[in-house]
Amino acid sequence: MSIQAELDRQMKIIRSGTEEIVPEAELIKKLERSLREGRPLKVKLGIDPTGTELHVGHAVPLRKLNQFQKLGHSVELIIGNFTAKIGDPTDRSETRKMLSDSDIETNFNSYIEQAGRILDVDNINIHYNADWLAPLTFEDLVNIMAKFTVSVMISREDFANRLKNNTPISLVELSYPLMQSYDSVYLKADVELGGSDQKFNILRGRDLQRAFGQEPQIGIIFPIIEGTCGKRKMSKSYNNYIAVNEKPNDMFGKVMSITDGLIELYYRLVTELDPDLVDEISKKLKDGSLSPYEAKKNLAAEIVSLYYNDQTAQEAKEYFNTLFSKRAIPENIDKVVFKGSLVALVVEQNSVSKSEARRLITAGAVKLNDEPIKDIDAAAPEGVVKIGKKKIIEVSRG
Amino acid sequence: MSIQAELDRQMKIIRSGTEEIVPEAELIKKLERSLREGRPLKVKLGIDPTGTELHVGHAVPLRKLNQFQKLGHSVELIIGNFTAKIGDPTDRSETRKMLSDSDIETNFNSYIEQAGRILDVDNINIHYNADWLAPLTFEDLVNIMAKFTVSVMISREDFANRLKNNTPISLVELSYPLMQSYDSVYLKADVELGGSDQKFNILRGRDLQRAFGQEPQIGIIFPIIEGTCGKRKMSKSYNNYIAVNEKPNDMFGKVMSITDGLIELYYRLVTELDPDLVDEISKKLKDGSLSPYEAKKNLAAEIVSLYYNDQTAQEAKEYFNTLFSKRAIPENIDKVVFKGSLVALVVEQNSVSKSEARRLITAGAVKLNDEPIKDIDAAAPEGVVKIGKKKIIEVSRG
Repeated sequence: MSIQAELDRQMKIIRSGTEEIVPEAELIKKLERSLREGRPLKVKLGIDPTGTELHVGHAVPLRKLNQFQKLGHSVELIIGNFTAKIGDPTDRSETRKMLSDSDIETNFNSYIEQAGRILDVDNINIHYNADWLAPLTFEDLVNIMAKFTVSVMISREDFANRLKNNTPISLVELSYPLMQSYDSVYLKADVELGGSDQKFNILRGRDLQRAFGQEPQIGIIFPIIEGTCGKRKMSKSYNNYIAVNEKPNDMFGKVMSITDGLIELYYRLVTELDPDLVDEISKKLKDGSLSPYEAKKNLAAEIVSLYYNDQTAQEAKEYFNTLFSKRAIPENIDKVVFKGSLVALVVEQNSVSKSEARRLITAGAVKLNDEPIKDIDAAAPEGVVKIGKKKIIEVSRG
Repeated sequence: MSIQAELDRQMKIIRSGTEEIVPEAELIKKLERSLREGRPLKVKLGIDPTGTELHVGHAVPLRKLNQFQKLGHSVELIIGNFTAKIGDPTDRSETRKMLSDSDIETNFNSYIEQAGRILDVDNINIHYNADWLAPLTFEDLVNIMAKFTVSVMISREDFANRLKNNTPISLVELSYPLMQSYDSVYLKADVELGGSDQKFNILRGRDLQRAFGQEPQIGIIFPIIEGTCGKRKMSKSYNNYIAVNEKPNDMFGKVMSITDGLIELYYRLVTELDPDLVDEISKKLKDGSLSPYEAKKNLAAEIVSLYYNDQTAQEAKEYFNTLFSKRAIPENIDKVVFKGSLVALVVEQNSVSKSEARRLITAGAVKLNDEPIKDIDAAAPEGVVKIGKKKIIEVSRG
């Protein structure tokens, strides 16, 4: 294949699912030179070692890293252990949340285990940024700070809003973009990946690299993926997320619960479907030849298949069909041994708070053999229990 | 003397010539405890080791230090060698102005030589702030930064104005108040002196001491002293200053050139006259029983006497009277040996630029035996030369 053809092929893959490449023309130049000289690009992603359950939103840049890796480039994962080790001393009302080296190691192992579902973690370079940030002296920092102005820093949207609303911003927070930028300088990164909330920091990395006489990195920016609620970004705190470790049936069910407006976005960001195919689905949705319900079922199967396999995806789809489409009790429902209160059962099975569990019970959403149990003081019963619209289990006391 | 009487006496001396004591009530408490426990207050003044010719404006806080010293307190002079050593890397268009240890030493010796005219430099404590600032790690700095918010920092008047006018502020500049504050923490300062342009930084020192569990220092704030022009603050760059090393006749002449509006301020800040006496002079100036001209002559004599002695002050006054009041040539004029051009002579004698020297010559302000020499290419003549209104010398070629 000619360099030009390979360049076009790579750019097509890299472009897919991105919100913005800043600037694309420079990426093309870097990539062309990389192909010509057989020198892989250094593609950077920074992660927090704070113990995250990875969801399909986190998977977006990881999936892009996987693409870069398959295209022969070099994946550089930066573990932000410097911040984690020093803690964020901003909030004076709380004890400093410092992580020990062993906490960081544990969290990192869990991260890698989850990320391993998406990319080949044995062939990436892993860096801990405390290695180069901790030894910086005040003088080094003065030289870094000199490259940034206050007005640029407070132009970051969230800072600008907080200043406007008189919500305090600690000086420490100004130093975070600085750390992230210096990571890029230290690594001589060619590309940095991040959600659109990271665009500012990634651009500061470009500034600092330029100030240090390096060729600036390219930012590959992803849309922020909205959670299943369709209103807020996907996050554990909003309980609107689909974890990459989700069980197949739960994963399928959660995808089915997204609002129609998210279908195309999820096809583009969460699956690995060819962008041309997604265009086609989008067209069919618009002209009505594909119903949102069918589109979601295909999407859910696609996602389960990505994290498991086609067979499991097919089974999850059948389970879903039995459960919701035919409104019957499926043959192979999960069996649960449970001895506590009904409230505790609901809390455990649906991962909700106690008060939410009580609300569900009071509202008649918890049923034994299709009969609501509305007594919030009841013990967990034995038999087929339905909780809400999606959960169905067979409970016994063991 | 009772503690209360001594406290009143000290407060009266400390208060004189200050613009503000922030907060005065806390100073009284500290001072009272100091007297009770026989423990001197630590009184801090920070200085730049950048090679300054001290003027009577710089002398204001030094004079206050001298008072504190005489009252039995401890004078802590901080040499800001950390900034001087790292230079200010903000201005990218210029080479970094770093000072070597030996430059700093030279400048410091010159400073101490000049300051020795005002206070007993053998009995003060001298500190170099690089001793504690240079070893700070990024982690230490994060802990210091955490104590400050962006909105407080950019509320500093000059920062606020520059943000409004889109004049860039480097992040490094935000770190200067931080360094100054940390100096106070390190020293556990009780009092810090500074002009009103330093008030913000001194208050930040209070914040940081409080955050580090210390009792906050008291700020003793002086009015910014205007230069002889009466328009801008006294500064070498505006050529409106009276150096503490000025020759007696020049010092007297310069004081005579101040605008009438400055008379009272100079009496209060530049002399050591009893505040009650200054009140009286001010009253007489207002009711017309004392002319500004006479008041200035007394002021000039007072200042010369302070830096030299009464005898010299008297001679300077007589020299001035002869020179300007009687418009005659005094008997004991300075003798100058000079062989260069007339322009060079004017440059040397009046400390002006070449273009200003040419302007004076063209304007007829340079006279040989009372006859203007308007030729800007002339050689320096021999004889009695008057330059402008104040300078009169006898020139010979040696």
